[in-house]
Amino acid sequence: MSVLVMKFGGTSVANLDRIKRAAKRVGLEVAKGHDVIVIVSAMSGKTNELVGWVNETSPMYDAREYDAVVSSGENVTAGLMALTLQEMDIPARSWQGWQVPLKTNSAHSSARIEEIPTDNLNAKFGEGMRVAVVAGFQGISPEGRITTLGRGGSDTTAVAFAAAFGAVRCDIYTDVDGVYTTDPRVSDKARKLDRIAFEEMLELASLGAKVLQTRSVELAMRYKVRLRVLSSFEEPSDEAGTLVCDEEEIMESNVVSGVAYSRDEAKMTLLSVADRPGIAAAIFGPLSDAGVNVDMIVQNISEDGRTDMTFSCPTDQVRHATKAMEDAKEAGDINFARLDTDTNVAKVSVVGIGMRSHAGVAAKMFKALRDENVNIKVITTSEIKVSVLIDRKYMELAVQALHDAFELEKAGS
Amino acid sequence: MSVLVMKFGGTSVANLDRIKRAAKRVGLEVAKGHDVIVIVSAMSGKTNELVGWVNETSPMYDAREYDAVVSSGENVTAGLMALTLQEMDIPARSWQGWQVPLKTNSAHSSARIEEIPTDNLNAKFGEGMRVAVVAGFQGISPEGRITTLGRGGSDTTAVAFAAAFGAVRCDIYTDVDGVYTTDPRVSDKARKLDRIAFEEMLELASLGAKVLQTRSVELAMRYKVRLRVLSSFEEPSDEAGTLVCDEEEIMESNVVSGVAYSRDEAKMTLLSVADRPGIAAAIFGPLSDAGVNVDMIVQNISEDGRTDMTFSCPTDQVRHATKAMEDAKEAGDINFARLDTDTNVAKVSVVGIGMRSHAGVAAKMFKALRDENVNIKVITTSEIKVSVLIDRKYMELAVQALHDAFELEKAGS
Repeated sequence: MSVLVMKFGGTSVANLDRIKRAAKRVGLEVAKGHDVIVIVSAMSGKTNELVGWVNETSPMYDAREYDAVVSSGENVTAGLMALTLQEMDIPARSWQGWQVPLKTNSAHSSARIEEIPTDNLNAKFGEGMRVAVVAGFQGISPEGRITTLGRGGSDTTAVAFAAAFGAVRCDIYTDVDGVYTTDPRVSDKARKLDRIAFEEMLELASLGAKVLQTRSVELAMRYKVRLRVLSSFEEPSDEAGTLVCDEEEIMESNVVSGVAYSRDEAKMTLLSVADRPGIAAAIFGPLSDAGVNVDMIVQNISEDGRTDMTFSCPTDQVRHATKAMEDAKEAGDINFARLDTDTNVAKVSVVGIGMRSHAGVAAKMFKALRDENVNIKVITTSEIKVSVLIDRKYMELAVQALHDAFELEKAGS
Repeated sequence: MSVLVMKFGGTSVANLDRIKRAAKRVGLEVAKGHDVIVIVSAMSGKTNELVGWVNETSPMYDAREYDAVVSSGENVTAGLMALTLQEMDIPARSWQGWQVPLKTNSAHSSARIEEIPTDNLNAKFGEGMRVAVVAGFQGISPEGRITTLGRGGSDTTAVAFAAAFGAVRCDIYTDVDGVYTTDPRVSDKARKLDRIAFEEMLELASLGAKVLQTRSVELAMRYKVRLRVLSSFEEPSDEAGTLVCDEEEIMESNVVSGVAYSRDEAKMTLLSVADRPGIAAAIFGPLSDAGVNVDMIVQNISEDGRTDMTFSCPTDQVRHATKAMEDAKEAGDINFARLDTDTNVAKVSVVGIGMRSHAGVAAKMFKALRDENVNIKVITTSEIKVSVLIDRKYMELAVQALHDAFELEKAGS
């Protein structure tokens, strides 16, 4: 018996016609001999409606009640999908999180999965059930209350089921047809990748490519779950979408796999900070406490015992960051002459596992940007990524130039 | 500790404002010192939407999936009601059927309640919870699947909780302000009853007074649950609504409590039926098999071994009844000359537990109708009810005449 996990997002089950279309795809996989676990989201718009009601009722809501309300959307889709499959003469039934049970901790509205016992579903597969339709995004706490998994929860549910059942693959159906070398709206040379390594996908996901939630990719990487991202609006085909997999499964790949960007970045600089041991902690501790997601950090060379400290964060966190810095200054924890904020910046990154074994990627990147007269404000690097902060107006230009420089329109070069 | 059960129907929780208004009523009872169990329906319209989706997906649906889908509406209201109460600083939490657990049999979509263990809720009441908000209409089967209780399920849930917890009373909030001596739209002399006996309410409910579902009244009668019907749109008051209770609690009452009517009746007559032992079974067996709810039955005096058999049923079952009779004739099970159908009839009934000890109610009824020249087509009686079938055009006239004849505009006469 081989188990396949298929996950359908909100737009793929937005109405009864779409549910029927999704069910036909499930039918194709059943016909191939798979036992299928289908994870469904709520019909698109439903969860937002429910969240709106909760917020209007109780702005500082009890997360346990939030979860009880918000999880109901997935239950509806799960039942309707099971009925649709039954109409196609496929033995199917729906499962709510507590029925599986998908056990989580008690961190309501952002719970973590602790265990998915396979007994209940396997017993039904043994009795002839071919499809288990599971309501995504939800589980049950040790106290017996309904939990939800937070943002990206349905993708995470799908990967967790694939890991628990040793699935041959986890297919994530969404409204895009795969992972691209860059955003097709920015470069018409963008090419769909057939395969991408977990690590690369993680960097791309965290850089704002919204195809998969970071958390589900992390989980897939840890349990080596082969993840396929594909569109539920394309004709079914074995070559559809992009396979996110272990790098060992990728025979030939470009040094650089993709160019990512993030538009909503802000650059903040603390000028003339007293440079003393512990100053970094004194700055970034309060920022962290204020919930600011600091991304890049650069410290200038110190002069006369003073230095400049630059960091980037999402634009919508600038207000919190400013307040945290001013409060810290007032409390005497840090001392700086001025705080400069530049919200007209963007981050552009090149990502690729090939960088580990190839030198010169950063140099090639900087040259390509220089050739277009794009000034680099901040640089950070990781093992498989180089990111730069530039003026936002050059963002598209930079993405196109880098896509060309690394010849990403060609496969496996 | 005294427990009060309060049930709010779909129109009473139709939107966030209405939920807030309902929560305020709960707050008043909490302030009086009650621990409260609130039973909620789905926001009005929601269940119909879900049922519509199920029917469109699968006309001959799997009732287990129907239940999984349709029960979700109540879960949403339960969570929102709990949040609303918390905003009022009242310790509250929501409970879904399986969390209580409300145990039912496996008759999906019309399940019967088997047991409501009180441990879980009582433990929380012991910890300081003041209100348990329970999703109505739903339970859990021995197989661990979600069941729904069918029509009137939320009223039944409320009464069952009141019985299990020995509640002081079960308040059913609806969009009418109580039980009337007759339909106020038919007679402007209709008077709200302060109290009515279970038996009377049962007769009125089954006669088409849509205030309470028969099933919930039966359950209340069996467990002697004091049931109060009242409007959630009126100012709160201790005298509001109508108390449905044991007749021993009703000190003084009219001989007749109310005049009920049912507009959608049809009279069917099998002419010249061979009168032999077993003929009634041969006629009413097939009708029952065809799902026809036969109400009144009259057999004429036999002549020359043949008789006429008249019965009434709801208008929308005439087609099924006709087919059942013709099939039985074709099969040779019965023999009749002709089947006459009159769909222009209505049923008018007087109901009252006082009839048990007072003779002459039927005679007074017939006289009142004769005085208005209303011809009686069929008569049936029970211990506390006399019903007649008349031409539909006289229905309002008859109701008004009977209301006057029994002086129902006056209390306790």
